[in-house]
Amino acid sequence: MKNRKDLPVLVDLHKNVFFDEDEKEVIILDRRKLPEKVEHYRCKDYKEVAEAIENMVTQSLGVSPAGAYGVAIAAREVQGKPTEEQEKQIEKAVKRIKNTRPTQTSLHHLLDEMLEIAKEKISKNENLFKAMKQKAYDWTENLMKTSEKLGEYASQKIEDNDTILTHCYGGPAIYFMGEIARENGKKIDYFCTETRPYLQGARLTCFALSNGGFDVTLITDSMAAHTMKKGLIDKFITGADRISMDGSVANKIGTYQIALAADKYEIPFYAISYTGPDPDTPSWRDIEIEMRDEGELKKFRGIKITPERVKGFYPAFDCTPPELVEGIVTDKGIYTPDSVAKYFED
Amino acid sequence: MKNRKDLPVLVDLHKNVFFDEDEKEVIILDRRKLPEKVEHYRCKDYKEVAEAIENMVTQSLGVSPAGAYGVAIAAREVQGKPTEEQEKQIEKAVKRIKNTRPTQTSLHHLLDEMLEIAKEKISKNENLFKAMKQKAYDWTENLMKTSEKLGEYASQKIEDNDTILTHCYGGPAIYFMGEIARENGKKIDYFCTETRPYLQGARLTCFALSNGGFDVTLITDSMAAHTMKKGLIDKFITGADRISMDGSVANKIGTYQIALAADKYEIPFYAISYTGPDPDTPSWRDIEIEMRDEGELKKFRGIKITPERVKGFYPAFDCTPPELVEGIVTDKGIYTPDSVAKYFED
Repeated sequence: MKNRKDLPVLVDLHKNVFFDEDEKEVIILDRRKLPEKVEHYRCKDYKEVAEAIENMVTQSLGVSPAGAYGVAIAAREVQGKPTEEQEKQIEKAVKRIKNTRPTQTSLHHLLDEMLEIAKEKISKNENLFKAMKQKAYDWTENLMKTSEKLGEYASQKIEDNDTILTHCYGGPAIYFMGEIARENGKKIDYFCTETRPYLQGARLTCFALSNGGFDVTLITDSMAAHTMKKGLIDKFITGADRISMDGSVANKIGTYQIALAADKYEIPFYAISYTGPDPDTPSWRDIEIEMRDEGELKKFRGIKITPERVKGFYPAFDCTPPELVEGIVTDKGIYTPDSVAKYFED
Repeated sequence: MKNRKDLPVLVDLHKNVFFDEDEKEVIILDRRKLPEKVEHYRCKDYKEVAEAIENMVTQSLGVSPAGAYGVAIAAREVQGKPTEEQEKQIEKAVKRIKNTRPTQTSLHHLLDEMLEIAKEKISKNENLFKAMKQKAYDWTENLMKTSEKLGEYASQKIEDNDTILTHCYGGPAIYFMGEIARENGKKIDYFCTETRPYLQGARLTCFALSNGGFDVTLITDSMAAHTMKKGLIDKFITGADRISMDGSVANKIGTYQIALAADKYEIPFYAISYTGPDPDTPSWRDIEIEMRDEGELKKFRGIKITPERVKGFYPAFDCTPPELVEGIVTDKGIYTPDSVAKYFED
């Protein structure tokens, strides 16, 4: 990309989580308030950071930077304290923040690594806070670089005048894809599903992309097939929560249903994976779909939308089988579903 | 059906629109407030009835009874006036109420018929108000009988322990189908999509069916395919706005997308039509899809869900082609899509 100066606030992960000028607080962009308000949530200590993560102040790619800055502020709190106390504090912070997302392995690996670095810095009596802060920044920067790379690979599939349908919020790569295509002289428009029940598409994707100057059109989740039938969509491109080794794509509930419609109209579906295929997940059969609380389905921002005695069924994700996937975009390039194993050789 | 005493309020069209005891006001069940409040909206004259219809106080099968009672209250207003004035008033009322739904032909036919009856009653100096009131009641009762008949035919397709997925609110027939199946000793459960943007599924269908004592589960519109993949759905059954002569089904946006998923899992899709196939619509190509205001998409009960500069694309309906339709349920029985023309011979 030519420059990263004027990125939409949601796209720039360095603006999603950072230290305030005096380095006294961790500042987190409050995604719950978007798009109505661009507000920042302030955390005085690592416990407040953990609570913010639990309360969905940030989500998706915002979580691990928030966790890292949480460990950094924990280090700041014990500056000058005895080394034993410092180590204990970092251990506590790591444990607490890991608990906010018990199954997010990338967060856990990052925090384990920070704990190792912390132990070394403490034993050598080097500046612990500075090291933790630097690690948090570097991690965030690395996510941005990966996002750019993913966006660049995805943009190679974009043709001039393409309209891309996307579902949920696929993170900065969804923006970079369009931005890089545009830099290369290709016109690109977006359609976004609203993505019930949390409306990440309407609230986050539409916000990021329209901030970036793209032509963005919102549809409800049930309009994808009709929109494709009308010839309005050229490609279906989303993020991916997990890629199994058989080339299946686990992603936000609804992705599969739209992929079925895309297949009907021979519209290619690309999934963008920030972490590459997961060697511990041989096939879609090994992906357990997280079931969320039915209460989240039965209310909208506190307003009841259905009678109390009605049940809710809320799978958070679904799984799109390899035969509906055209390509999986990774930091090493784009793979067909039957060749994702090559990722580990490249 | 065995008895109609304890119908859920939304299912009983006689409880959706009626005269109050003193016959001074037309009372309309306010569907906008459901399911949180069961409130009735009171109309002092036909103009208020017309406004209520325009403002979506009632919708779908509630509209034509409301229109008929609107004409009746117009007749009440001119009791004892000169015959010329009476006729003028009914003409004005008919014109005004027709304008609330410019394309709803069944409403227009009904009101034209009422105008004819009115002219006759006026010329013979018979009780105009009584005749109009009776016509409104008879029309409503006829809709109820049709709904029962449709429910009965549809119930023949239900097998014991079936779980039925439905989309939007398909009117009283969706309830009667289950009620009659239950009377015949078949256990039946329902899954309802929420049906964005107006949430008719969550607000109306879930309300009517759970009031009727059924086991009802709500899903978002994007969960249908995954729910089918999990083996939770046996049949997909909805109402139909229009049936073209090639057996296509025009219905609430999203029906087509779910029908595609149902086809994938060999789940039969039945559409229930209150009016039978439309001889003026040879094929789906002749069905113009109504486009609604994008603003309705960008808000949820007054709360903005996306930035102002984002566009909205809001087709109110979609069209499911005959190859995805197992059967069309009419008041004369169930037809395969390729045999709907037989309806006019039977």
